[in-house]
Amino acid sequence: MSLLYSSNMAKVVMNHGAGGETMQDFLSKHIVSHFPKMSSDVPLNSLDDSAVVDGIVFTTDGHTVKPLFFPGGDIGSLSVAGTVNDIAVMGARPLALSCAVILEEGLDIDVVDRVMDSVGKTSALCGVPVATGDTKVVESGAVEKMILVTSAIGRRSEHLDHNISVASGYRKIDSGWLTDDNVRDGDAVIVSGTLGDHGVSLLSFREGYGFESVVKSDVAPLNGMIENVLKKGGAVTMKDPTRGGLANTLNEWSSKSGIGIELNESDIPLKDAVVNACDLLGIDPLSIGNEGKAVIACVPEMADEIVKILRAHPLGKDASLIGYASSKTKHVTIRTTVGGKRILEPPIGDPVPRIC
Amino acid sequence: MSLLYSSNMAKVVMNHGAGGETMQDFLSKHIVSHFPKMSSDVPLNSLDDSAVVDGIVFTTDGHTVKPLFFPGGDIGSLSVAGTVNDIAVMGARPLALSCAVILEEGLDIDVVDRVMDSVGKTSALCGVPVATGDTKVVESGAVEKMILVTSAIGRRSEHLDHNISVASGYRKIDSGWLTDDNVRDGDAVIVSGTLGDHGVSLLSFREGYGFESVVKSDVAPLNGMIENVLKKGGAVTMKDPTRGGLANTLNEWSSKSGIGIELNESDIPLKDAVVNACDLLGIDPLSIGNEGKAVIACVPEMADEIVKILRAHPLGKDASLIGYASSKTKHVTIRTTVGGKRILEPPIGDPVPRIC
Repeated sequence: MSLLYSSNMAKVVMNHGAGGETMQDFLSKHIVSHFPKMSSDVPLNSLDDSAVVDGIVFTTDGHTVKPLFFPGGDIGSLSVAGTVNDIAVMGARPLALSCAVILEEGLDIDVVDRVMDSVGKTSALCGVPVATGDTKVVESGAVEKMILVTSAIGRRSEHLDHNISVASGYRKIDSGWLTDDNVRDGDAVIVSGTLGDHGVSLLSFREGYGFESVVKSDVAPLNGMIENVLKKGGAVTMKDPTRGGLANTLNEWSSKSGIGIELNESDIPLKDAVVNACDLLGIDPLSIGNEGKAVIACVPEMADEIVKILRAHPLGKDASLIGYASSKTKHVTIRTTVGGKRILEPPIGDPVPRIC
Repeated sequence: MSLLYSSNMAKVVMNHGAGGETMQDFLSKHIVSHFPKMSSDVPLNSLDDSAVVDGIVFTTDGHTVKPLFFPGGDIGSLSVAGTVNDIAVMGARPLALSCAVILEEGLDIDVVDRVMDSVGKTSALCGVPVATGDTKVVESGAVEKMILVTSAIGRRSEHLDHNISVASGYRKIDSGWLTDDNVRDGDAVIVSGTLGDHGVSLLSFREGYGFESVVKSDVAPLNGMIENVLKKGGAVTMKDPTRGGLANTLNEWSSKSGIGIELNESDIPLKDAVVNACDLLGIDPLSIGNEGKAVIACVPEMADEIVKILRAHPLGKDASLIGYASSKTKHVTIRTTVGGKRILEPPIGDPVPRIC
């Protein structure tokens, strides 16, 4: 860790916001450390997807994606989906969104209309209304076009108790929520679809590599699909693998749960174009952010049922069981297709900047 | 209205975020119009300080103040106080804050530490913890130093029913919340202290006019003081007069409640330095944003008691009864010290840009 971040590094760098280990360290040292300790079911210092305060699930997300419009989505759909997903993966039902808009003076009002139309349409799609907002304008040059910050509130899903009781039929569950520290030896790890689509599409579109014609962003609100999983039951934790991708999600689970995870490379769903693009660009598709995928850990006895439920949903048709938690290792490891084994390191950051 | 905003104006301008009539029109046409309609106690389209959804009071605020540190406060204290105040003026008890940070690459980490320390100290001061957050970094030039977006959740204050029942002893109260449309003929209008301090201090500091040595920003969380008012009872609505100042607050009340308001100029508390600075700069202290003041409308029978309660609090020592709602006018009018009368127009925007 000391190699990633030293006290001599006195300036903010891109990786401080890139979702990996450098960010976690920066947040702990320079953000969270200044805030008074609070007692809550899921507090800030657990750095989970959402906090739970007095029964209210609460989350916030800043969006600085570049460009504002990209294949498969835009900053509006991204904001709504990303924030709704942070609530849903806690096992909660999102109730309402807030939308704070920072605009650059001189921006075409047509751009504002298009983005807000997308916010509205995505809000309608997932059934989570925008309840409150704020709009600021700064002079040209003080922000690049537009920043959106969405927050959301939710309540414990009416199906979460059922989900946990199904899991409890097989082993003791320590937390009443789907928190990062819930993973135990033998738990199955499932992804709801192909990984890396959002980051590759965005990077390719931005840099003109051409892969974006076959790979679009997966941006989508997952609350409906996740609700189906809760109704089936047996999940112990979930996460939407945004900045830092699957590698970040699984290393967070591994670290917070104190358990290793063993994956089978051949079971990880990846589009050919994503693999090709990542080979060409020298980046790991498992460290790239996704915006419409869930990673789910569940008791192994329910794994097949959960994969089936996911595949029955349009957003989960490529769902796959990719591995198991294991006390035999402390790392996240991948059994490669040629029979070897490699460690999936916690990423320092996301290899693609400003993707969300 | 058509003079303020026409469809030919195809670019975002500073006044679209400056809190006045131009902003209201912009929000209605280009932001809120795109969002699906929702049913809630206090919905988005009422453009009140906070929304109330399923019993949860919810608000958000983007902060782009320039510079980050100013006499009496900084972007951290401003964010916490402003967001907590938006919850408190609804008659609610703030429970928790979220804090989304957008940082410019290359910013001194020391600046991040100082701002977050201020967020933490203000959070501790008002007893509202930061429960969740998000941090993004963008490349140099894509944002100016730092933007903070805070959201907050709260619950109906345990004293709001008492407050409304005291008011109901004198006249019928139509809303169960302290909403902008609650003002009726004869209601008293009270401010909790001197007006214009924040905007004048900030503008003076930024431009080097020198008034900031005697006028500091009033930034302060008001939840404690407001709780005292609710315990006394009789308030019908409250607002923190931020962007657009008292002029904006009272014109919003007047417009949403369908009633005029008559003020006595000599009763409006203004620091001499603020009056002098505003004279020199040709701006109206009543149209400048405040960050630590409440404007309260109450049934007239409770006005003296509420002023007394406010004055007993360190943040309310200059509280003053400044006028009454009146069905004799549709406007907000001021009886001047020389015996004349002028209309306090709804401001087009705040005369001081980027003060919050």
